[in-house]
Amino acid sequence: MKSPIDSRARFVETTATLLRRQGYHGTGLTQIVKDSGAPKGSLYFHFPGGKEELAEAALAYSSVHMHDDLHQIIAAATSPAEAIEAITTALADRLEASDFLDGCPVATVVLEAAAQLPGLRAVCSASYGRWQTLIETFLIRSGIAKEQAEPTANLVLCAIEGALLLSRAHADTTPLRLAGTQLAALLDGLRSPA
Amino acid sequence: MKSPIDSRARFVETTATLLRRQGYHGTGLTQIVKDSGAPKGSLYFHFPGGKEELAEAALAYSSVHMHDDLHQIIAAATSPAEAIEAITTALADRLEASDFLDGCPVATVVLEAAAQLPGLRAVCSASYGRWQTLIETFLIRSGIAKEQAEPTANLVLCAIEGALLLSRAHADTTPLRLAGTQLAALLDGLRSPA
Repeated sequence: MKSPIDSRARFVETTATLLRRQGYHGTGLTQIVKDSGAPKGSLYFHFPGGKEELAEAALAYSSVHMHDDLHQIIAAATSPAEAIEAITTALADRLEASDFLDGCPVATVVLEAAAQLPGLRAVCSASYGRWQTLIETFLIRSGIAKEQAEPTANLVLCAIEGALLLSRAHADTTPLRLAGTQLAALLDGLRSPA
Repeated sequence: MKSPIDSRARFVETTATLLRRQGYHGTGLTQIVKDSGAPKGSLYFHFPGGKEELAEAALAYSSVHMHDDLHQIIAAATSPAEAIEAITTALADRLEASDFLDGCPVATVVLEAAAQLPGLRAVCSASYGRWQTLIETFLIRSGIAKEQAEPTANLVLCAIEGALLLSRAHADTTPLRLAGTQLAALLDGLRSPA
């Protein structure tokens, strides 16, 4: 038997996938209900604010999920260069496995809806902030000076996000894999000698 | 008196702006007609394929426009570092002047519609290809070795695209301006000694 918690989780997960692949405007409640398999009547029970409230919950879910993935990869890496190559490889593999649908889970909404929906923009902005802090903290722990770690974390996140976008445009992960190799070389050059 | 050519151009320019700011799914023909001020009856005369054909023309128009802007900035610069700072500054100024609406003119459509509309994806992919070739050619002419110019042009374009995205998410051009400074330093380091 399916509990109300199952329904809520299924709405959130389904919406997260649809927002990532086609954005806010292209995603209707009918498709969310159909793809989730959860009862339509429970949608407004869980999300009285409707599509916008559900989208905020879905983006927050995606944000935590990506943060956890990045954290796991970073924790297993022995250097910033190794971490960045592992991150770009994992993202490229996922993009290919999804037939170039699963890029950054929040980027699509940023571009097509953030200007009109400030609540969604805030969730996306907070996501990027947390991912960047995760990268910056790791760079500092790896021996890169704080004043270099901050702009470097910005460049790394910008390059990965842009590479995910270009890889979707070209339906080819070369931009992402190549950016990973270049960022790894850049990070290797930044480390202070032991 | 307005000629049919005026109507066509106005549809294309209006659609280019709307696609950039809110994407394909969020842009309806009613809004295009209203914002353009062109007669509704002439839309299907100029674009028998409707919204999709108009969107392709609009993205192609934006692509040429951005290419010309980049070309002008590059032609006026005396070094890759100066060019990249001028490009990111111009893009950041435009983003601020538009209240964080005018980011990359093709990125929004890539993320929310390219998977379902292969014709639009092809136009966006070709745009990125042309911009990247422009950057790569300039790097080679500036004395950077060809085997370094290709991956560097990829990293530059990825970082700029990602920085435009992050700047829209944060409603703050810091990611873009900071990425410009860092890319400039990176490019300065790559040039062979004279």
